[in-house]
Amino acid sequence: MNNNRHEPVTVIGLGRMGQALASAFLKAGTPTTVWNRTASRADQLVAEGARLAPSIGDALEASPLTIICVTDYQAVHELLGASDVDLDGTGLLNLTSGDSAQARNAAEWAEQRGARYLDGAIMAVPSAIGTSEAVILHSGPQSDFEAHKSTLDVLGTVTYLGADHGLASLYDVAGLAMMWSVLNAWLQGTALLRTAGVDAATYAPFAQQIAAGVATWLPGYAEQIDSDSFPAEVSALETDARAMAHLIEESEAVGVNAELPRLLKAMADRSIAAGHGGEQYPVLIEEFSKPRSRD
Amino acid sequence: MNNNRHEPVTVIGLGRMGQALASAFLKAGTPTTVWNRTASRADQLVAEGARLAPSIGDALEASPLTIICVTDYQAVHELLGASDVDLDGTGLLNLTSGDSAQARNAAEWAEQRGARYLDGAIMAVPSAIGTSEAVILHSGPQSDFEAHKSTLDVLGTVTYLGADHGLASLYDVAGLAMMWSVLNAWLQGTALLRTAGVDAATYAPFAQQIAAGVATWLPGYAEQIDSDSFPAEVSALETDARAMAHLIEESEAVGVNAELPRLLKAMADRSIAAGHGGEQYPVLIEEFSKPRSRD
Repeated sequence: MNNNRHEPVTVIGLGRMGQALASAFLKAGTPTTVWNRTASRADQLVAEGARLAPSIGDALEASPLTIICVTDYQAVHELLGASDVDLDGTGLLNLTSGDSAQARNAAEWAEQRGARYLDGAIMAVPSAIGTSEAVILHSGPQSDFEAHKSTLDVLGTVTYLGADHGLASLYDVAGLAMMWSVLNAWLQGTALLRTAGVDAATYAPFAQQIAAGVATWLPGYAEQIDSDSFPAEVSALETDARAMAHLIEESEAVGVNAELPRLLKAMADRSIAAGHGGEQYPVLIEEFSKPRSRD
Repeated sequence: MNNNRHEPVTVIGLGRMGQALASAFLKAGTPTTVWNRTASRADQLVAEGARLAPSIGDALEASPLTIICVTDYQAVHELLGASDVDLDGTGLLNLTSGDSAQARNAAEWAEQRGARYLDGAIMAVPSAIGTSEAVILHSGPQSDFEAHKSTLDVLGTVTYLGADHGLASLYDVAGLAMMWSVLNAWLQGTALLRTAGVDAATYAPFAQQIAAGVATWLPGYAEQIDSDSFPAEVSALETDARAMAHLIEESEAVGVNAELPRLLKAMADRSIAAGHGGEQYPVLIEEFSKPRSRD
């Protein structure tokens, strides 16, 4: 739900993602100023109604909120640190990909120059921007997020995570780790089943059901981690490890890759060796929370 | 929905799981015969109404379907291969844990002796038996499964996979690989977020949503595998690999384990090196379908 009167917005950086962001604002009727080092990247957006700023300083002054989405944090610092750029009083949302330390450093740097700074991460491909499937994560001062939320809502599912500017990056990579892990587990199962002539489409709904079912356990398992207590209410880690051995043996016997099964078991075995075989699976948080000894 | 008149059933092997199976039959009013090498394991079940067979031969003759659930396939062969045991005309469902080759061998062995043989796998802990959460997988001749389905339904969610006796084992380990992978990805994310003071309970719903969301992509991605064509409709593998590098760097920077992130990237990198960087993620099926070269 947006007001009829839209707060203007500026988009700096017109790669594929920046173009998608600006285009979504224009489609929603948001007055949109754009700037890019190579100005021709703005041509299509200008045709859609965007205003091309003559300088980055002008772009920053044009709107209460400027979104910057460029190659990396170094480019952010080069663009916003130029001698003719005044950040005092600007509202910034940095959607450039980077890690949590870069986000925290950029926040400190921008705030020292008088900017109000939010960091964000886009969990979507450019083509999804402007739909609810585009999840966009934000971290930094909550009041700054709330001030611009109605502007940002047109981009997708807009989420606030907390005041620590590093949170958007951390949630982003954590979510991606989940995405790739679900896909890889599905590929492992698909590879196993194909050796018996089962096609991928036949196996997929089964994998989907398991993934969605296990996902529902996470809030309950989280309580074990937060209370640092792992009673084997459902099953013990050593039972899991025995079944992991079956997975390895089966993968090897039918001739598919066994690296994922072996990593699963190696981590469980280390936790069992540390005395946790009679506890429940989430006790593995201790292994995940530290670098491997030989790292 | 069960008929009032229940087909009798026999359960051989009264470990924790066998006891749970027999108990679920008794609760449903199914006439249940039990047998175990150590007969005292049947005491509680006899108190609940089970009939203790004096011999394994008697146990097999008592019911049109005998479920065997023992330590391993070697125990199955020892028990059913004894000189005084006649399998001719018996109906067997073997729920003992094992791999697909063991299941296929046991089927051939039992069928040569005149048995009708189904293999199965229980995706549940004993305490879940008798509830819909207990998923029990079956493979072997469909007519034999259909003949006993109404008897088996009282055990949980009873599923038929196909005629190949190895399918139950393969689906079982594939499903477990998904279970552990979702849990491990959640632990990786939880470890990352805890370095920023975010507790596990706060992160869990986010992880749950991602896992369930990605699971819905699997049927569509399966079409790419079955057609052996991987156009980058959503994103290219090389884009994933760049984001995997962020995950590794972030994990290392905040001091958590990076083995899972490194395995993700190693497999993607091999696929890119094989020329698939511009294709979509499911092209990794080629890496999952073969042992690692140095294996």
